[in-house]
Amino acid sequence: MYKPKLEKDIRCPLEYGLEVFGGKWKSRIICVLAEKKVLRYNQIRKEMVNITDAVLASALKELIEDNIIERKQYNEIPPRVEYSLTEKGMSVVPILQSICKWSGAFYNESNEKTLAQCQKCNYNVPK
Amino acid sequence: MYKPKLEKDIRCPLEYGLEVFGGKWKSRIICVLAEKKVLRYNQIRKEMVNITDAVLASALKELIEDNIIERKQYNEIPPRVEYSLTEKGMSVVPILQSICKWSGAFYNESNEKTLAQCQKCNYNVPK
Repeated sequence: MYKPKLEKDIRCPLEYGLEVFGGKWKSRIICVLAEKKVLRYNQIRKEMVNITDAVLASALKELIEDNIIERKQYNEIPPRVEYSLTEKGMSVVPILQSICKWSGAFYNESNEKTLAQCQKCNYNVPK
Repeated sequence: MYKPKLEKDIRCPLEYGLEVFGGKWKSRIICVLAEKKVLRYNQIRKEMVNITDAVLASALKELIEDNIIERKQYNEIPPRVEYSLTEKGMSVVPILQSICKWSGAFYNESNEKTLAQCQKCNYNVPK
């Protein structure tokens, strides 16, 4: 079995959390699945807009390994694969929402353009 | 004045928050300043353990630009520079704590080694 040469050096709980669901793509994938519940690979890809397959596949793989999302394969012709949040994955959503709320309070004070409403979590940034 | 060629494309509030305080170093710097209140450059560097000057300087610069930390320079000989959290910076701390709490609940179930107590926020990971 493949074993990474350098083990990830996770030193504190904060680091573990940010590793598991922080970052641009992982957090977005979680948001989209929180909103849409069940999606196929191509649907996730479309929601992410400009992601490459390599990056999306790697993000999904890590999210599955960390038990944040579940991959369900149906043995049909053509084969169907669906992704959804696990219970652990759903428990991340309130944290992402609190980050959105914090951003809504602070973004516009320091930026010229205002943030558009987040399509993913439907959080309205105050104008 | 220097202007970056590519403007950062922040599309949603979640992305803004993760950009401002997510990531390994920025979140750690905020934790350390939340704990120690006021630190000089070399003290922050020591707390970060294996950070390079280039990475630390760049993280501090961005945190200052985003009004998360304040840089106070005293005109003494030798000159003294101190860093502390702004009010906006302090408002990030509860979010970081909620990430720690989440990690504490989930880390050990899926990992062989247990996480040591976080020195920065004194959050005890349950054994």
